[in-house]
Amino acid sequence: MPDFDITTLTLEQKASLLSGRDFWSTKPLLEAGIPSIVLTDGPHGVRMQNGVSDHLGINDSLPATCFPPAVAIGSSWNPAAAERLGEAVGREARALGVAVLLGPGINIKRSPLCGRNFEYYSEDPLLSGVLGAAHVRGQQSQGVGASVKHYAANNQETERMRVSADVDERALRELYLPAFERVVTEAKPATVMCAYNKINGVYASENAWLLTDVLRREWGFSGAVISDWGAVSNRVAALGAGLDLEMPGSGGATDQEIVDAVRRGDLDEALVDHAVQRVLALAAHAPDPTQAFDVDAHHALARELAAESAVLLKNDNAALPIDDVTTIAVVGGLAATPRFQGGGSSHINATRTDAALDAIKALAAQRNQSVSFAAGYAIDGSIEPNALRAEAVEAAAAADITVVFAGLGEKEESEGFDRTSLHLPADQVELIRAVAAASARTVVVLSNGGVVSLEGWHDDVDAILEGFLLGQAGGSAIADLLFGVANPSGHLAETIPLRLQDTPSYLNFPGEQGHVRYGEGVMIGYRHYETVEAPVRYPFGHGLSYTTFQTSDFSVELTGDDTATAAVTVTNTGAVAGSHVVQLYVGTDAGPVRRPIRELRAFTKIALASGESRTVTLDLPRRAFAYWDTPLGQWVVAPGQYRVEVGEDSSTIIAEQEITLTGDVIIPVLSLESTVGDWFAHPIAGPALLQGMAAAMTDQQRAQAADQQDQLRMVESMPMKQFLAFTGDIIPITALEQLIEASKAAQPA
Amino acid sequence: MPDFDITTLTLEQKASLLSGRDFWSTKPLLEAGIPSIVLTDGPHGVRMQNGVSDHLGINDSLPATCFPPAVAIGSSWNPAAAERLGEAVGREARALGVAVLLGPGINIKRSPLCGRNFEYYSEDPLLSGVLGAAHVRGQQSQGVGASVKHYAANNQETERMRVSADVDERALRELYLPAFERVVTEAKPATVMCAYNKINGVYASENAWLLTDVLRREWGFSGAVISDWGAVSNRVAALGAGLDLEMPGSGGATDQEIVDAVRRGDLDEALVDHAVQRVLALAAHAPDPTQAFDVDAHHALARELAAESAVLLKNDNAALPIDDVTTIAVVGGLAATPRFQGGGSSHINATRTDAALDAIKALAAQRNQSVSFAAGYAIDGSIEPNALRAEAVEAAAAADITVVFAGLGEKEESEGFDRTSLHLPADQVELIRAVAAASARTVVVLSNGGVVSLEGWHDDVDAILEGFLLGQAGGSAIADLLFGVANPSGHLAETIPLRLQDTPSYLNFPGEQGHVRYGEGVMIGYRHYETVEAPVRYPFGHGLSYTTFQTSDFSVELTGDDTATAAVTVTNTGAVAGSHVVQLYVGTDAGPVRRPIRELRAFTKIALASGESRTVTLDLPRRAFAYWDTPLGQWVVAPGQYRVEVGEDSSTIIAEQEITLTGDVIIPVLSLESTVGDWFAHPIAGPALLQGMAAAMTDQQRAQAADQQDQLRMVESMPMKQFLAFTGDIIPITALEQLIEASKAAQPA
Repeated sequence: MPDFDITTLTLEQKASLLSGRDFWSTKPLLEAGIPSIVLTDGPHGVRMQNGVSDHLGINDSLPATCFPPAVAIGSSWNPAAAERLGEAVGREARALGVAVLLGPGINIKRSPLCGRNFEYYSEDPLLSGVLGAAHVRGQQSQGVGASVKHYAANNQETERMRVSADVDERALRELYLPAFERVVTEAKPATVMCAYNKINGVYASENAWLLTDVLRREWGFSGAVISDWGAVSNRVAALGAGLDLEMPGSGGATDQEIVDAVRRGDLDEALVDHAVQRVLALAAHAPDPTQAFDVDAHHALARELAAESAVLLKNDNAALPIDDVTTIAVVGGLAATPRFQGGGSSHINATRTDAALDAIKALAAQRNQSVSFAAGYAIDGSIEPNALRAEAVEAAAAADITVVFAGLGEKEESEGFDRTSLHLPADQVELIRAVAAASARTVVVLSNGGVVSLEGWHDDVDAILEGFLLGQAGGSAIADLLFGVANPSGHLAETIPLRLQDTPSYLNFPGEQGHVRYGEGVMIGYRHYETVEAPVRYPFGHGLSYTTFQTSDFSVELTGDDTATAAVTVTNTGAVAGSHVVQLYVGTDAGPVRRPIRELRAFTKIALASGESRTVTLDLPRRAFAYWDTPLGQWVVAPGQYRVEVGEDSSTIIAEQEITLTGDVIIPVLSLESTVGDWFAHPIAGPALLQGMAAAMTDQQRAQAADQQDQLRMVESMPMKQFLAFTGDIIPITALEQLIEASKAAQPA
Repeated sequence: MPDFDITTLTLEQKASLLSGRDFWSTKPLLEAGIPSIVLTDGPHGVRMQNGVSDHLGINDSLPATCFPPAVAIGSSWNPAAAERLGEAVGREARALGVAVLLGPGINIKRSPLCGRNFEYYSEDPLLSGVLGAAHVRGQQSQGVGASVKHYAANNQETERMRVSADVDERALRELYLPAFERVVTEAKPATVMCAYNKINGVYASENAWLLTDVLRREWGFSGAVISDWGAVSNRVAALGAGLDLEMPGSGGATDQEIVDAVRRGDLDEALVDHAVQRVLALAAHAPDPTQAFDVDAHHALARELAAESAVLLKNDNAALPIDDVTTIAVVGGLAATPRFQGGGSSHINATRTDAALDAIKALAAQRNQSVSFAAGYAIDGSIEPNALRAEAVEAAAAADITVVFAGLGEKEESEGFDRTSLHLPADQVELIRAVAAASARTVVVLSNGGVVSLEGWHDDVDAILEGFLLGQAGGSAIADLLFGVANPSGHLAETIPLRLQDTPSYLNFPGEQGHVRYGEGVMIGYRHYETVEAPVRYPFGHGLSYTTFQTSDFSVELTGDDTATAAVTVTNTGAVAGSHVVQLYVGTDAGPVRRPIRELRAFTKIALASGESRTVTLDLPRRAFAYWDTPLGQWVVAPGQYRVEVGEDSSTIIAEQEITLTGDVIIPVLSLESTVGDWFAHPIAGPALLQGMAAAMTDQQRAQAADQQDQLRMVESMPMKQFLAFTGDIIPITALEQLIEASKAAQPA
């Protein structure tokens, strides 16, 4: 409805358009020709609810393909995968009558305990933003609007509807907002969904800085801001801050509040008009229920994407792929009853489900291998574990290789609450250890939405395939990977720590008494571990393949004062085709803020046949070198040296180049409150002062000054005003006043 | 001048009394009979400046005894030592004409890098507060006023004059303020000195919450608040906030500002009157320059206190004391030219200085042992180290035992700047390693104001005696300890970490762009290491002796709802007399905030002859169990279980008892904004809701509810208002309204 003339509507009619009719649709105004549109949950599938509506995933929805959730796609490191997923989900949404599908979720994984991490991509904002933008492009190419969420700093489930994320602006700008910025500016999502929580004391839904200053003014967002379901606390304040559509509806109560506020003069009607125009514009995303979708093709796509996402963490002595064996033991209930998605609002009623056990049997049969199975444990803890374990050990001892399926049950992680431990269930740990002791070769396949610790069993097994949650075709994808039908190419989008206590937010998660202090600032995930040189189980970016890659000829060239391009050649030096992720990190000691030792600044995934070689180039824009300067309120590139590194992962640097950037010349405005250190370091005042002092000093004074140099370090942090009071005006005040004026004159116009 | 009638003074006269005459004295009003008084630097000695005044320690001062600085006294864990030091310093101050001696410094050691840590006691507020109160009692017993400093959150030197310490109230209340609270309430210091820095954006000197609400209203402080030298930024704002005396003077400029503000009506003259009365009251601390002090006796006391403070960190195979040898090699320039105090405003012009080398020679001569000496290094780096090292190795190889004196030079640490590394100078590390490789037995004696890493050499040596900075008699005290003339009884008042990167403030120290985020909250020092189970080199509280102690019969008894008393028997099971520190820690999982796993809550040091046994009792007041509840604005004891532990140090618990406290019953006031979790956990509403729901449910609904229990975990954090909107008012609103009223009615009157 972009051309709709809203002046024909009454204030009451306009207000009525700004909240939902019910859980999943907007209010129509039939007399004005305004239709109702449907918004429903996603994003790795369509959750079109059937029957009584709720937001809790309790009631059934129409069948749809459950593609790999974001935790898996994050590990693909492949925007093409995210885009194809978005396209397919868009096709299904269109067919099911959905105008806006709620997703993707691009919040940063601040703690591995966050119950909703399975819906998010990564601990890194670049990876999250690139994948999120690709998803939105794909989904919106089918005419279905996206809703990038949850904006912003929604990094936990505990107290999510009222906790205040107390976080510095630099951490917001460098870590928690950039993925949103990228998606908004590059992919232009139809909507942005505001988060439940507060940010520095102000609800996201009422946060004018967030919803208007940053989102619209800085990033140029022109779509609609919608509330997370039930996130509006004060409707009038929210509208004033920039929240257009409240979901779900309130039976008209909040519409009336808007009307009253305008009538009272507390709310500018122009804000109502803008919001209505944005909501009406969503009607452009008209679904087409006459279009069916190809269930089989989408299932095949889900399988392909899943195979691209699983991460081969460990593969000692080429334990995988399974080829040289005749008997295979499969252990673990999750092989037969897969866990492939998370609980909560994103829960999809899958069109079908592949169990890994069935897929393994099918591939083994082709190879004349026999497969035995033992449940090993009951994922819901309903059966006494000792007998199950004994049976599994017996099967393992009799086989050439044992594949143990382990992971978390639905009780252990979900939207709505956070975990409190990284451990696998104790009976599974015991099972893995017992099986590994009995088996000739042990492979563990993991299914989990949030990262689990590998403590207590990691060293006992030969190979580990981390599947996270792989969607409805995950079972067959895992079989493809185990047998080498597909070659693993997933890489960790989040660090696997050794212990929960090592995680940087450990003592500040999930907060207390209404507040969660982001005390670690920008130092989350690998930014923390690498900067403090702390050991981890597997670093961010880690992932093995059945082939090998060699990297050579790394070069970096400046393309401007503060931009560069890097080139590197990758060769598949192994016997089979495979995909490699080139990871480019940047680090510097320049500038006035504490930087992570390195940050991911560019990446690309390339498929190479055996023996194939390719040179890729990656651009490093200005932002790749910048930090957010809070006092200046802008991105600044500090002049100086920068390391540009190629990493196998965030802790394994295989090539490095150093470049020098011109950077931004910031000439501070001086005052008598500026410290002695500020004065002497100032590009204009510093040299002038030194010259003036040298000229005025006697030889004896010069010798004394040299003698007292160490003691003079003490005064560096003293404001010039106090320094003059203490030293009896050894620098003429008139000279200082002239230098203050000079520092002002040197400011950019 | 307590009875002085200030109504006889003009406003100008009154204002003139509120800033210094010069660096070290207040303005007299001779016509009114008001004298000038002298305030000067301390606190481990009197720095009465001679000649041109400065605050930087550059110019000489009158000779005075340099007692062990706070870093050493902190390690004594003995309030009697702090009190005797205070007394002696008070005697010297009185004799030198000083009315107020500036100290003690009781800031918490947030980072080992803080350049002024040598002037502070500990990373623990109980230890800091007990020692600080004892010092004040001792000093003021001699009629000399104390000035407890730097109030508050002055935990670094970098940008100290303007940085904002951004710190949560709970961390302030539990960690950074309690030592001040104890000193103020128990020892009634004449003055409190406000810090240079800002706290949460407001200068300490202008912080009404800090200087008036907390200090005067809550703690009942009735003395004068004085500024750190040059800490006043806005005189009128500072006076309004509660700062009485500005030091040093401003030549009358700020006095005039006060006058103008009163005349303009911007400042209540009553505030001026109160400040004047408090400043005049300082005249009660009249010095008596006719009293001399006993230089020899004070030197002997300095030696005794130093011996009580050094910490024997390591003593493998009873390497110490030195008794069974005939040849001793002493290595290291610090043996001949001791470093015994820190740089900056507390720098004392010592009456004499004991070098360890001389003292060792004297004691060795009594035992017919020979002593050789090699410099090993030049502390100022002025001599090429290879030849010095070779000479030292030769001496070490020829001796039965080698004592290496290592440490930091004056260039490496001082007031005014922070360190950036914990390492000893590289040439010293190389020296220690080389000597240890050549020597039959190697002992390292350390001199350093801030903690140093023992990395690279710790495992190579047999014994380590950490002397920190021991004052002018430190050299002879060290010799006493090395030969067993004195038995080591110091214990670490701060953790020695393995690496700088392990320290909890590492990434947030010293802050950036005007702010330092106290991101670690209350988790500083051992509170952090123990809670995250991180290894350290030596834990807080660690310290060895030449004898052994056994602890037995630990019991804890409740003495009220939330108070207890603990008793424990300690026996000296070794062959020589010695002193033992009983350390009592408390920990709990009760309550809504994240607690450190344990916190020091009581301690005492007892001297025992060989074979002697004594039972000590220690009180655990209510505060020992309480946390600061920020929303309630009060100390709260959470009902529940508490561990009371006896520790050899903070990580070695040798006895434990569990007690159950009644605690404070907090009945929250409910509203529709309260979450479903709040409602069901509420002591009144929760049972009522469960009963009501159970009664209203059909059997089928009950079965369904049990089935959906896991999914219902999701709604715990949902405000009741949204829950009702989502579920269609399954709980009658009238019932909720009644429960809200009931929750209000249950509040304390």
